[in-house]
Amino acid sequence: MEWKTKITKVEPNHLVTKGYRQEDLIGNIPFSHVVYLLLKDELPSKEHGLMMDAILTSCVDHGTTPPTAMAARIVASGGVPLPTAVAAGILSIGDAHGGAIEKGAKILQDAIFKMKKENLKIEKIAEIIVKESIKENKRILGFGHRIHTMDPRTKRLFILSDKLKISNEHVALSIAIEKELEKQTGKKLPINVDGAIAAITSDMGFDWRLGKAFFLIGRVAGLTAHVYEEQTDFKPMREIFTANIKYNGPNEKNLP
Amino acid sequence: MEWKTKITKVEPNHLVTKGYRQEDLIGNIPFSHVVYLLLKDELPSKEHGLMMDAILTSCVDHGTTPPTAMAARIVASGGVPLPTAVAAGILSIGDAHGGAIEKGAKILQDAIFKMKKENLKIEKIAEIIVKESIKENKRILGFGHRIHTMDPRTKRLFILSDKLKISNEHVALSIAIEKELEKQTGKKLPINVDGAIAAITSDMGFDWRLGKAFFLIGRVAGLTAHVYEEQTDFKPMREIFTANIKYNGPNEKNLP
Amino acid sequence: MEWKTKITKVEPNHLVTKGYRQEDLIGNIPFSHVVYLLLKDELPSKEHGLMMDAILTSCVDHGTTPPTAMAARIVASGGVPLPTAVAAGILSIGDAHGGAIEKGAKILQDAIFKMKKENLKIEKIAEIIVKESIKENKRILGFGHRIHTMDPRTKRLFILSDKLKISNEHVALSIAIEKELEKQTGKKLPINVDGAIAAITSDMGFDWRLGKAFFLIGRVAGLTAHVYEEQTDFKPMREIFTANIKYNGPNEKNLP
Amino acid sequence: MEWKTKITKVEPNHLVTKGYRQEDLIGNIPFSHVVYLLLKDELPSKEHGLMMDAILTSCVDHGTTPPTAMAARIVASGGVPLPTAVAAGILSIGDAHGGAIEKGAKILQDAIFKMKKENLKIEKIAEIIVKESIKENKRILGFGHRIHTMDPRTKRLFILSDKLKISNEHVALSIAIEKELEKQTGKKLPINVDGAIAAITSDMGFDWRLGKAFFLIGRVAGLTAHVYEEQTDFKPMREIFTANIKYNGPNEKNLP
Repeated sequence: MEWKTKITKVEPNHLVTKGYRQEDLIGNIPFSHVVYLLLKDELPSKEHGLMMDAILTSCVDHGTTPPTAMAARIVASGGVPLPTAVAAGILSIGDAHGGAIEKGAKILQDAIFKMKKENLKIEKIAEIIVKESIKENKRILGFGHRIHTMDPRTKRLFILSDKLKISNEHVALSIAIEKELEKQTGKKLPINVDGAIAAITSDMGFDWRLGKAFFLIGRVAGLTAHVYEEQTDFKPMREIFTANIKYNGPNEKNLP
Repeated sequence: MEWKTKITKVEPNHLVTKGYRQEDLIGNIPFSHVVYLLLKDELPSKEHGLMMDAILTSCVDHGTTPPTAMAARIVASGGVPLPTAVAAGILSIGDAHGGAIEKGAKILQDAIFKMKKENLKIEKIAEIIVKESIKENKRILGFGHRIHTMDPRTKRLFILSDKLKISNEHVALSIAIEKELEKQTGKKLPINVDGAIAAITSDMGFDWRLGKAFFLIGRVAGLTAHVYEEQTDFKPMREIFTANIKYNGPNEKNLP
Repeated sequence: MEWKTKITKVEPNHLVTKGYRQEDLIGNIPFSHVVYLLLKDELPSKEHGLMMDAILTSCVDHGTTPPTAMAARIVASGGVPLPTAVAAGILSIGDAHGGAIEKGAKILQDAIFKMKKENLKIEKIAEIIVKESIKENKRILGFGHRIHTMDPRTKRLFILSDKLKISNEHVALSIAIEKELEKQTGKKLPINVDGAIAAITSDMGFDWRLGKAFFLIGRVAGLTAHVYEEQTDFKPMREIFTANIKYNGPNEKNLP
Repeated sequence: MEWKTKITKVEPNHLVTKGYRQEDLIGNIPFSHVVYLLLKDELPSKEHGLMMDAILTSCVDHGTTPPTAMAARIVASGGVPLPTAVAAGILSIGDAHGGAIEKGAKILQDAIFKMKKENLKIEKIAEIIVKESIKENKRILGFGHRIHTMDPRTKRLFILSDKLKISNEHVALSIAIEKELEKQTGKKLPINVDGAIAAITSDMGFDWRLGKAFFLIGRVAGLTAHVYEEQTDFKPMREIFTANIKYNGPNEKNLP
């Protein structure tokens, strides 16, 4: 039985990751570029490397409000090791939390593929996508945010991707969808940070199936800080959150 | 009920992490430096920033042999989302896997504290530590490796910490322990990569309780690559490993 | 802000779960019946209670071969607390491992719904399902097993569900699909233990979305035994599995 | 390479768990007794079987207040599969949550061992334990509860263990410690449900290292109900908890 892997060759005193000796990578290549190497099988250009740094940093933390941070802190408060609590935070990255990067990137990548095949214009594709989403009453993922109307991370990421000449058809399609959304619904639903990362990583050539990966790798830094803060500044089993909980199950009764 | 956090201030369209606006950090500060900021409450000097990059990269991957990668790939093969499988890998970071950084750093930090308090020499402290470990038949964590006799990561990390003038008393103590181990046991037990990170992060001023954090943040990049490879190159529920498993429980019998 | 829950009312010295005081449940109602109460909002009949016991027991363990047990043991070997390792095992319960109960139950429940609405015969529905699966080249989940041709658990579960007069249209449809599979493909693909649980719990009136729940609750018992065995009989970081791993990534090269 | 396991023998169409064929266990032995078999290598007596049922049921749920339920629901709200969310809940079982069973049982088992060796009386041992805990300012785990003064579960468990003639020296020592605590501190710190399970399972002959296992296996049932309720009654990413969060980190400033 043989098992093939393209990631790391392990021999005594010799480690080769995606073609490069680890002793060459360590201290010569920024960590963010090594992340890029691991996910894309090549070292980034200067522009792509800078963009990867920006994307990971944009995912780092959003305070205690998202499920990632809440879950990590609550689990930490049970009195468990740091990695166990950080992992609990990661588990909450799902279709509704960070998942818009993956699904958003899929929509964009499928649409651009279709656009090229059928020789359509970006505006036309955007119009179709928005029309369908309204018809099926389904949100297009990557637009709108529960707290921000003009997310500072989104703005900054797009300025960078423009400046670094990374912005291309996927970013253009995102902007066209934003316009169409306003046109067809009358409401402003600005691209959110997930949507920006979906568009930019698509223009960088990443597979949409890695959508949650960028968020995860960046967010782990923030989660580690949350767990460390919980473990060093607070007592175990403290009352973290309050909620007015009401039992509305079956009425109290005797056993049959 | 009020809950205080020092990590991120979240206001509509405004995110401040450890004092810095996120739009300022994104694209201006390397991700590894943001990790440093989150764990140490300040941006690193140029030297500390470079060292942090090196440390995170040195943790990135060690092929499919460690529990982290094995657990992540096995869980991925059950047909679950990427973050679920990556989290499973993180869960295996424990006292016996990555834990030597935490425990090693504690030993070094406690010893240097004692050394200063009692005005001892580094060589003396090393002698005491090794003597005690032999007496109690307990391994000093951070020395020896199941595969490498001269781990290329360890060597590279120490060259860098010397060059960047980060190496100080904790690194010196590690080297003294390595020498004492050979002297007292007659065996070579070279500092391993965990031991190197323990010593260097201690000289950088990090709390030993963050020992597993560096390993975790770096390793998440490799785990993501493992899960992605498993999900895209292999079928679910493939036979990943073989083992000659022998049941040696109670003999087969009828119910009483 | 109010949050409603139907599960447990918590007051000082007073706990009511799904209508029953916990002090009444404890020691009077078998644990398996309490599981039933939690998932179905009522205590089971004698027959349903016995069936639930049988289903949970049938999920308890399948040795070290499935991802659940492998992941739990590997994570345990990293030197982590028992619950962390058990949780890692649970994480591997996914579309490809245990997931056939959920997806199989959905297929059966949808088909019976359609059968009643369109006044079809069970054999006709089975014929359609198998024909479609062949056309779309998609496996019908719950049939065939990588090790067993006549799974002893499956046989026993069906004998019981017949004897307890629980077997009804969903079980009948499963058997009809098994026959159609042989007829249309010429191959024997017997109902497996997942398929049996899917059919029987559907006839017991459970929501298909609980498909993985039965497997999970039963399997946790086995996983706990695996982690305990690993922690008490073996050393941390032992070599659990062997595999002939071959690196087929990019050739070793110098940094650019 | 050979790997030995005492849990399950897996052969085609043949599964033997702790000596018994699975087809014999299924439907003949209650699930709770199979749990006992897995953790203790033998089927329980009638009394031990009933006690195991009672213990597992007493752990089933405590509403939404404990970390287990909070973590499971928050992770579920990220839009992940049921097992991922249940596992997140389990991760919070730690030294401060459920851990009192393990640590409490260790204290009791060590004390009884010492008592027999040194031929002491139970009251004397209790006096020593309480004196030491006061001197070292350390809580004796298993006494006192954040909500209940007279936990209905505790009372019921002790009534049962007395009635079933399971209560023995470990239960007696728990009661003696409760009395000593009141005598030496002047405060009532009644045995809590963790303490009761610690004492009773010790009298049943279970290893203290399984302390968290009973809690975990029982609680999984409640967690599954919580995740199912969250997934079917609520929208993803709903605001589950509120907290008045105050940022007290470094003041907002410009990059250096």
